[in-house]
Amino acid sequence: MFDTAIIGTGAAGVSAALTLKAMNRNFIWFGSARLSEKIARAEKIRNYPGLSSVSGEEMQRAFLSQIEEMDIEIANKTVTGVYDMGEYYGILCDKESFEAKTVILASGVESVKPVKGELEFLGRGVSYCATCDGFLYKGKTIAVLCTSKALEHEISYLASLAKKVYLTPLYKTPEIEAENVEIVPGMIREIVGERKAEAVRYGERELLVDGVFLLKEAITPSVLVTGLAMEDGHVKVNRQLETNLKGVFAAGDCTGRPYQYAKAVGEGNVAAHSALEYLSENASSKA
Amino acid sequence: MFDTAIIGTGAAGVSAALTLKAMNRNFIWFGSARLSEKIARAEKIRNYPGLSSVSGEEMQRAFLSQIEEMDIEIANKTVTGVYDMGEYYGILCDKESFEAKTVILASGVESVKPVKGELEFLGRGVSYCATCDGFLYKGKTIAVLCTSKALEHEISYLASLAKKVYLTPLYKTPEIEAENVEIVPGMIREIVGERKAEAVRYGERELLVDGVFLLKEAITPSVLVTGLAMEDGHVKVNRQLETNLKGVFAAGDCTGRPYQYAKAVGEGNVAAHSALEYLSENASSKA
Repeated sequence: MFDTAIIGTGAAGVSAALTLKAMNRNFIWFGSARLSEKIARAEKIRNYPGLSSVSGEEMQRAFLSQIEEMDIEIANKTVTGVYDMGEYYGILCDKESFEAKTVILASGVESVKPVKGELEFLGRGVSYCATCDGFLYKGKTIAVLCTSKALEHEISYLASLAKKVYLTPLYKTPEIEAENVEIVPGMIREIVGERKAEAVRYGERELLVDGVFLLKEAITPSVLVTGLAMEDGHVKVNRQLETNLKGVFAAGDCTGRPYQYAKAVGEGNVAAHSALEYLSENASSKA
Repeated sequence: MFDTAIIGTGAAGVSAALTLKAMNRNFIWFGSARLSEKIARAEKIRNYPGLSSVSGEEMQRAFLSQIEEMDIEIANKTVTGVYDMGEYYGILCDKESFEAKTVILASGVESVKPVKGELEFLGRGVSYCATCDGFLYKGKTIAVLCTSKALEHEISYLASLAKKVYLTPLYKTPEIEAENVEIVPGMIREIVGERKAEAVRYGERELLVDGVFLLKEAITPSVLVTGLAMEDGHVKVNRQLETNLKGVFAAGDCTGRPYQYAKAVGEGNVAAHSALEYLSENASSKA
C-alpha cells in the first residue's frame, strides 16, 4: 500500500514527486520516462523562475536530472482507472493494479476536444488504451485517432493485431510502415452506432469499424476517476487542491487555466502538502 | 500610471514580474535589490523543480541573473501604504507616491508575531518605517525592534537622529557602533501608553520612550492595504488569487501555507495572469 499515487509526469507531477521524496514518503509515480511531450515541445519558456529563457527540451533535461539525483523512479505505465475502495484507492494500469491511500491527479489537459459520441461509446467500442483493449480487435477493422507522435508505438501495436487500421494522426509526418494502415487525414467528426460504436464519420466520408481507439496524451480526469466532480471542463478543486473525493487531490493544467509551468509546479507542491496532511490526519484509521 | 504594481521581491514577486515582462506590460516592482533575505538564508532547497538541491544563495543568484537578462528593474523602495483611489490604486513609499491600475501583493509573511499594543499604537508612536518617521524623533528616546540584519542600516539612521535608542535585535551579532544605542536583549513584551505609545516592557523591565520602531521584513498586509480582508492571519484569496478588493491580487506566503518556493512561484504566475485579465476586462473604463 503506497501513501500516495501521483498520476502524470508533467510539471505538476514533478513538483509533487520532489516534495514527497524530500519528505521521505512511500509513493508511486505513474507516467512517462520522458516526462511530458508538451514540455519537450515548448519552444521557449521565458517566465519560469530559476531557469532563464530555456527551451522545453532544456527544462525537460533539468527535471530529468533532478529526478535522477533524488533517486526517484517513474512507473512507465498508463493509468486506465482509479477506484474508491473505501479505505484506499485502487489504481488500474492495463491488467496490473496498485493501492494507495491518496491520489494526486496531475494528468494534464488534452487540447483535443472530445469527439461527438466518444463518451457515449466509451467501453462499448471506444477505448483510450491500445495495450489494454487492443487484443479485443484481433483480425478486426478499427479507426485510430492519435494526438502525438510519442504515442505512435501504440499504433504499431494495434496494426500488428487488427486486419485494417484507419489512422487519423493529429501530428506532422506520421511514420507508420504497416501495410494495413490507411491514413485518413483531417479529424474524426463523429462516432456512431446503435448499442456500440459501429462507424466513424470524417467530413462526408463514413467508414464501418469494429472499434475506435483514441490515443491521447491526457485522459479526461472524470473518465479516469469515477465520481470526480468537474467544473467548466476542469477538475473542481479548492485552494488546498482537494477534489470532491476525500484523499484525491489534483494539480496542474487539469485544474484549469493558466496553463503555465509555474502554476503547475506550485499546485503540485500544494497538492503534495495537502496529501501529507490528509495522511497524518487519517493515520490512525488506515491500515 | 502603471498597469500593475508588484509589492515584494520574494519568489512570488519574481514569478509575477517575469510573467508581466514576458507579456510586455508596464509595471513597477517594489522591493529589495537583493530580493529576499529569506531566500538567501535558506540552507538547502530540495524540492524546487528545475534547480537541483540548491542553496538559498544559489537560488537567489539564479533569480537575480534571470531578472537582469530580462531587463527587469526593481524599485528599491519600501511601500508604506496602498490606497484605493477608485479608478486606480495609490502607492505610498515614504514621501513618494505612485499610481497603478492593479496591485499584486507578494509581501511575504513575518515570522515574528505582532507585539501586544503594536496595532493599537500604530501611527501613534509606533512606526514600521525609519525613513518615513525617523525625523519625528530627533533628539528623543526610542525603542527599536529589528528582525533582520539586512535592516541594520535603518537602525543607524535612527541612531543618527535620536538621543537614545534601545535596540532589541532578533538576529545574531548586531554590528551597530553608535554610542547612543543600548542593546536590550530578548523580546519586546508589550507597548503601553495612554493616547500614544509611552513605554516598552521587556520581561520585568519597563523603559519610557517617545516612540517605537518595529523594523520587519514583511508588514502585515491588512496594515499595508486599507480594507484588505484577512482570514486566519493571511490574505483571503480565491483560486484566481483575487482579494476582496477589485484589482488587488495576492501571492506567496502572505496567502497562507505551505510556505514553499514552488507554491509562491505558482501563485505569482496566476496572480499576474489574473491581473492581465482584469486589465483587459477593464480597459475601456480606465484612463
